[in-house]
Amino acid sequence: MASTLRAEIPVTELLKNDPKNWGRWGADDEVGSLNFLTQAEVLRGVQAVKQGKTFTLQVMMGHPGGDPVWPGRAQPVRVNVMDKGHYLCGKGPVFPGHAEYADDMLIMYLQGSTQYDALGHVWCDDQLYNGYDARTTAGKMTKASVLPIAERGIAGRGILIDIARHRDKQVLDRGETFTHEDLLAAAAKQGVTIEKHDILLIRTGWIGSFYTRDKTEFYQDFIEPGLTYSPELVKWFHEMEIPNLVTDTIANEVTADPVSGVVLPLHNALMRNLGVTFTEIAALDALADDCAADGQWTFLYTAAPLKVAGGTGAPVNPVVIK
Amino acid sequence: MASTLRAEIPVTELLKNDPKNWGRWGADDEVGSLNFLTQAEVLRGVQAVKQGKTFTLQVMMGHPGGDPVWPGRAQPVRVNVMDKGHYLCGKGPVFPGHAEYADDMLIMYLQGSTQYDALGHVWCDDQLYNGYDARTTAGKMTKASVLPIAERGIAGRGILIDIARHRDKQVLDRGETFTHEDLLAAAAKQGVTIEKHDILLIRTGWIGSFYTRDKTEFYQDFIEPGLTYSPELVKWFHEMEIPNLVTDTIANEVTADPVSGVVLPLHNALMRNLGVTFTEIAALDALADDCAADGQWTFLYTAAPLKVAGGTGAPVNPVVIK
Amino acid sequence: MASTLRAEIPVTELLKNDPKNWGRWGADDEVGSLNFLTQAEVLRGVQAVKQGKTFTLQVMMGHPGGDPVWPGRAQPVRVNVMDKGHYLCGKGPVFPGHAEYADDMLIMYLQGSTQYDALGHVWCDDQLYNGYDARTTAGKMTKASVLPIAERGIAGRGILIDIARHRDKQVLDRGETFTHEDLLAAAAKQGVTIEKHDILLIRTGWIGSFYTRDKTEFYQDFIEPGLTYSPELVKWFHEMEIPNLVTDTIANEVTADPVSGVVLPLHNALMRNLGVTFTEIAALDALADDCAADGQWTFLYTAAPLKVAGGTGAPVNPVVIK
Amino acid sequence: MASTLRAEIPVTELLKNDPKNWGRWGADDEVGSLNFLTQAEVLRGVQAVKQGKTFTLQVMMGHPGGDPVWPGRAQPVRVNVMDKGHYLCGKGPVFPGHAEYADDMLIMYLQGSTQYDALGHVWCDDQLYNGYDARTTAGKMTKASVLPIAERGIAGRGILIDIARHRDKQVLDRGETFTHEDLLAAAAKQGVTIEKHDILLIRTGWIGSFYTRDKTEFYQDFIEPGLTYSPELVKWFHEMEIPNLVTDTIANEVTADPVSGVVLPLHNALMRNLGVTFTEIAALDALADDCAADGQWTFLYTAAPLKVAGGTGAPVNPVVIK
Repeated sequence: MASTLRAEIPVTELLKNDPKNWGRWGADDEVGSLNFLTQAEVLRGVQAVKQGKTFTLQVMMGHPGGDPVWPGRAQPVRVNVMDKGHYLCGKGPVFPGHAEYADDMLIMYLQGSTQYDALGHVWCDDQLYNGYDARTTAGKMTKASVLPIAERGIAGRGILIDIARHRDKQVLDRGETFTHEDLLAAAAKQGVTIEKHDILLIRTGWIGSFYTRDKTEFYQDFIEPGLTYSPELVKWFHEMEIPNLVTDTIANEVTADPVSGVVLPLHNALMRNLGVTFTEIAALDALADDCAADGQWTFLYTAAPLKVAGGTGAPVNPVVIK
Repeated sequence: MASTLRAEIPVTELLKNDPKNWGRWGADDEVGSLNFLTQAEVLRGVQAVKQGKTFTLQVMMGHPGGDPVWPGRAQPVRVNVMDKGHYLCGKGPVFPGHAEYADDMLIMYLQGSTQYDALGHVWCDDQLYNGYDARTTAGKMTKASVLPIAERGIAGRGILIDIARHRDKQVLDRGETFTHEDLLAAAAKQGVTIEKHDILLIRTGWIGSFYTRDKTEFYQDFIEPGLTYSPELVKWFHEMEIPNLVTDTIANEVTADPVSGVVLPLHNALMRNLGVTFTEIAALDALADDCAADGQWTFLYTAAPLKVAGGTGAPVNPVVIK
Repeated sequence: MASTLRAEIPVTELLKNDPKNWGRWGADDEVGSLNFLTQAEVLRGVQAVKQGKTFTLQVMMGHPGGDPVWPGRAQPVRVNVMDKGHYLCGKGPVFPGHAEYADDMLIMYLQGSTQYDALGHVWCDDQLYNGYDARTTAGKMTKASVLPIAERGIAGRGILIDIARHRDKQVLDRGETFTHEDLLAAAAKQGVTIEKHDILLIRTGWIGSFYTRDKTEFYQDFIEPGLTYSPELVKWFHEMEIPNLVTDTIANEVTADPVSGVVLPLHNALMRNLGVTFTEIAALDALADDCAADGQWTFLYTAAPLKVAGGTGAPVNPVVIK
Repeated sequence: MASTLRAEIPVTELLKNDPKNWGRWGADDEVGSLNFLTQAEVLRGVQAVKQGKTFTLQVMMGHPGGDPVWPGRAQPVRVNVMDKGHYLCGKGPVFPGHAEYADDMLIMYLQGSTQYDALGHVWCDDQLYNGYDARTTAGKMTKASVLPIAERGIAGRGILIDIARHRDKQVLDRGETFTHEDLLAAAAKQGVTIEKHDILLIRTGWIGSFYTRDKTEFYQDFIEPGLTYSPELVKWFHEMEIPNLVTDTIANEVTADPVSGVVLPLHNALMRNLGVTFTEIAALDALADDCAADGQWTFLYTAAPLKVAGGTGAPVNPVVIK
């Protein structure tokens, strides 16, 4: 979010004819499209399990080469407050029985690793998801924070669409876009069908590439690859009733819409308007390799971000069971 | 861990005849009894799902009345760095399209909420789980940290044993103990059988009571209820090959063994010696109420703590699917 | 600042006839009454030095019994990131020559110890000191922050008025008030004259008492002793052109004006309107004992808070030379 | 401190014939050469004041372009927790009288700005200044921390030696060295004499250059200019009984001794062995310009770092009065 240019088209104008799910689940709803994940849908997810293989989707926090965070967010910092060094120096606490221990602290941006956005994390026109007043974000989100998402948790059928593989690339290019049509084409090539209420995982190879790229180059004129806005794409998400969009990019969509110039329009079109939950910075490479190897691209996806009261987002380590 | 008294019996002495799983999964193993959770065991967990109900087990972070943390650990602190207030003051960043956003930071003890302990979190006799040198804990855990647990993730059949209900109490008393025999008796009364490799969730009502108690009283002469050490209990855990112990207390066991006086002996007997992973400060009341209502005490348990490199532990929000 | 009651009298109304120094030092001024401390005044301060004795006025940060902070602000936290323990564990960095070192981090409220308030720290009626728009405080103070005060530094003649001694008390009572008339009476008893442009240090004994009191009792219905608002007191400060008010309380004034009920009116009357800089939580007991012993109550006072860009305040350790 | 090469010569060996002040001020001393600053010396400093001009010597914390910190230390982070934005959103606390306020937090390395080192910050051979056991540094410095220095404070005659001007440079080169002989030559050219017990301020132009340099270039193969070790230099500091060395570099000496290859030998030779206090990252350019303009290179120097219990160092904003 580096630019300060003003677009000709406000995002509110761009999206004015697009659908909204506000009020659909009541005036107090704060979890949006997760409401599609009924018990029956959870069971559909469970039925996708075939082999008992598990995968975890968070990126490492505290990678020696640095973690992939949005420009302007600081790296997470972890510090020991107790360890064997204290005992060797005669300064560890002595308990009956002489057990010893290590302990530590963490300082992080709540969106500084793989994370769920609160539905109210991004907005326009002074209104958050479901019409909540944007002023409720001040100091601490009191509406549509990440807490209700964390309390509910997410479980359902997940499907991985590997756009990078579909295009025979290790990683999509800087700013490279794709649409829901591309998702359907890739799914067809993978031999799978995206079903209504599927949790949609999309791999671009972008986050995986962070660890091998020069960091200055990675952040230069920062623009990620990703989905790009169109009324048709929004309609497709709406009709498919996608509860959760998971990608291996920092922002789940191409950083700036190449047509309108609007920054992150899908955060408003999908998250704010439809209540689609966003899971960002997911590590999908190992899962994708396995899916490509065994041909099973669907699975039970479970995740629950930390229950941070008032959080604009919260870190998460999703568990996939194939 | 408040006392500084020296016990007559070092914990090493207390446990000298007890079993160890060191080397069982190789010299490089860092996940211990999670190795019991093979693909077949994951599928056994999946088969426990009957209804599609989900529950999340983390306590809230940032509760208005304070969070239940071990004495000496500070409360988590969350602070907004961007929100609608900035925009109303003309100080929010202006992007093309005029989307607005909120963002925040978190400062926490890594074990300051529901969390997985690293297998090396507690030790005695200068050796961590699997025989790793305790000096590897200095500054940053380079052996048996929480990272390998987080990378693997946990999925398997979970079973909830409600000791508080078994004893017709809302909450166990300060320092009240129970044994594996009590677990078996409670399971029998619940009409369930603890099977080999089950993820064991034990409810005492303790953490739930934190929110309604006077905090000064809660921490006064701090001693939690919980399991208590005996060679037979360790043998039972060993033979049952329990991969993961989850409780609604801060330390998963009675704070000090009432017989030997040793502080937290099960951290060494079960975690260090057998490699049983510990999940602490879990919120089990809603799950227990539901299990008591529908009679289904077993389920798929999935969890993965944050992938914190070198962490002595990491927060987690487990997802249970019944 | 615990109450949420609404006063009958807005502070703006209470102070409507009181003097302001806005514009006196230009539209861009951010240091207020520190402008009175010309080079001549600095020399007057230097001339007050007689013996070469020095005193430092900050309270300890990280006292084992806790630090005196305003209700709601967290205690400072200091954590080592390197020390001998790392080296004994073979994990300290090895430099040519084998020097070793210790290093640490700090997390604190900027006003969580002895500190200078930014002139814009407290306001009413949407305007800060000098008429700056209160919206400039959002995210980061861009007007009347603590930075210009820190860049300028403070040096001048200081005078200590010991109200506690004047009233033959170790410490003033909770909520006990005094006026500028009391200051004059105490000065007379001490045999000193408060001169125009003197830096005014007032001792109540309050902060010193924090360390020996029960902390729950200290914070119960929190109300400090201190100066109390009157038009005459404001007029006196205005005419005396006091550049800096230093006290051994957390807020430099009685917490709530016992007449109007208004909370912290002097922050607006003196700091916002006149530009008097406020130094809070000063440790004055040792200095006071020495002054009582040798009869020298005036001295050179020097101080400069940390140069924190955009800070609402910043910690300081003033140096007094008698 | 980036290298991990092992020198042929341990610093202990390098310094084996050099003088120490251990025990000179008692077995409990923790302030070292500050003991030279007796009341008489403070008065000598006061007598150096001629004009009443003041200067503050800290660098800004939170400069938009980043702050000059030692490689590996993170930048300070300041975050608002209350400001006008909260009130505009209806979320600021309402007090009787309706005063409003702003508040903020800071996260920093204690040596991440202009700072005093604790005398025990750097050591060799398992012993800190005055012979204290290096194990006392674990977790929290319990000997020779920055606290006693902060409690005492520093006041005395300061003298500025401008090596950059002496060599007709804006800033010394990377790794450029100088000796006490150069200090004497520069002093002679400035027309001043370094007297016994003077607080010695040395300007290289290095920190000032940080703000205009490319940061990647600044940190590339990081090596600062500065004083370089010789037995004669140590002897000179010893005989001159210099209480405090202040420079505009991050480490007060050339990063690695070009002769022995030893990293930061003067930290051991001067600070650990002689008890000379080190003030690093000082902003000396404005002071130097003024001294060059009016020809007055001596002054009263006052400073007191924050009273951080157990700190390895603490930030400071020194005040100079000419």
